[in-house]
Formats: sequence, C-alpha cells, structure tokens
Amino acid sequence: MTTATQLFEVSSTGKWIEGLKTEINIRDFSPVVVDEPKNLGGTDLAPNPVEYVLAGLTSCTSVMIGLIAKELDFSYSNVSFQNKGTLDLRGLAGDPNVSPHFQTVSYEVQITTDEDDEKLHALIDAVEKRCPVLNLIKDAGVKVSANWVRSK
Amino acid sequence: MTTATQLFEVSSTGKWIEGLKTEINIRDFSPVVVDEPKNLGGTDLAPNPVEYVLAGLTSCTSVMIGLIAKELDFSYSNVSFQNKGTLDLRGLAGDPNVSPHFQTVSYEVQITTDEDDEKLHALIDAVEKRCPVLNLIKDAGVKVSANWVRSK
Repeated sequence: MTTATQLFEVSSTGKWIEGLKTEINIRDFSPVVVDEPKNLGGTDLAPNPVEYVLAGLTSCTSVMIGLIAKELDFSYSNVSFQNKGTLDLRGLAGDPNVSPHFQTVSYEVQITTDEDDEKLHALIDAVEKRCPVLNLIKDAGVKVSANWVRSK
Repeated sequence: MTTATQLFEVSSTGKWIEGLKTEINIRDFSPVVVDEPKNLGGTDLAPNPVEYVLAGLTSCTSVMIGLIAKELDFSYSNVSFQNKGTLDLRGLAGDPNVSPHFQTVSYEVQITTDEDDEKLHALIDAVEKRCPVLNLIKDAGVKVSANWVRSK
C-alpha cells in the first residue's frame, strides 16, 4: 500500500548586509545573522553558514529523538549533542578535484534513559534512518561517524 | 600541481530543552534556538532544523558572492535572496521508499550590479561550483533550481 505524498514546504529570505555578513528571515522570527570568522574574511559577528548546517543536524537529531520516543513509548530525561565537520578549503577556493562541502562529519549524542538496550537501539536506528538533515549529509557522500552514549 | 589539504574544522554543541525544542551553541555566540511548528508537534518558538539548512544555503551563497566578487573585481551594491525547499513527510515518518530530506530546493538571487553579462555569468558560475552548502544539497541528489535576476 502506498500513501499519498505529504508535501511540507519551508522557505527563507535573506539580505546581504556588508562584507560577508547576511541576515536571514524565517517566518516571523527575529533575523538570523550569519558572518564569517576574521581569518576567512568576515567580521566574526555570528556563526557561519556551515555552522548553521551543523546546528540543523543537531537539532534535527533532537527533534527525531522526540518524535520517535513518542512512537516507541521511550522515556528519557536528558540529551546533549556535539558534532564536528571538516572542510577542505581548496574546494571552496575553486579546486575542481576537491568537494567544497564537508569531508567528514562526526556527531555524538549523550542520552540519559532507563530504557533497555533493545529499545535504545530501536530508537537510534529509527533516528538515523529518518532524520532529514543527517540523511542529507549522508546522501551527499560525506563520511559520517556517530557515537551514541547512554547514561542511566 | 596539487596543493596540500587545507582542513577547516567547524563544530557545535546542543542540549535538548523540552518537547522538540533544542538549544545549539556555536563558539561564543548566543545560543541558537530550534523548535518545530505546532502542527509538527512543537511549540513554534523558533525556526526548525531544515529552515536553518536553508539559512545556511542563502548565507553561503552570499558569502561566496562576496569572496568571488573580490577575486573578479566585481562590484555590486545590493543582493537579496529567497529560497524554498519541499519535503515529503512520509520519509521522516518512516516510509523507506521516500527520502527524509528535500525533494526539491529552489532559490532566487536578486543582485544589483553594473557589471557586464559576461562578468556576471562568470560570478554565478563560480558561486554555483564552489558554494559548500549548495553543493551539499546538490550532491545529496536533490533537484535544485536557480534563478538569478539582475538589476542595474
């Protein structure tokens, strides 16, 4: 049985301010400011574009944990996240043999739960299969490594 | 001639707050808050993860325009951006036959410049080849459409 497409649309607008600084508007929220560090030519007033992608990865993982925990009747009291991405700046600088985006992405999730290992693994498996931002990065051919750590 | 790898590392940390709300820390900047709209189960206090990816796309395009304009001695006075992504929520909900991330992404760039068409096309071509976030999305197999509009 197939179900009908459930299209969900997201959008943003943006405006270049000066130098490498840009303001992004998403719905009615306060503008998201984006800049680059000084060593990349910016004024370092805000995170840079790929850091926002990592923010998307962490928060997407967090949302999926929340949604899937509900489906599995899985309780948890705390979750924290770290992630890291490496880029080879030769790609961005124009070397056609080097990808301009991530070479590697690694992330760690610390979750506090009393659920048994089987249920925890079912949660992790579903999160990793269904998380939009994680799968965007994986589908782009980036080497992704994950480390889930639980405490009770 | 090949040049040596120029690794650049980015990272973020995050903490689940409650429901589908998460706070992300990037370097010493104020926390980035991420939530989901009410119809997806959140409290709608902030943009959602894929909206931050779109923010990354817009700002990355903006940064690349700035960097490449410098290389090409290209002047411009104004740039604004719109983009849009569609997801099919069946993927996120667990349908293994549907990608959990973007089905399509489209973006428009309005740029105000007096440079001639040839120089403008050289700029656009380089931005599209070298932009990290745009190429992440393209390499993930997403159908991407672009529209560059110039005014003088």
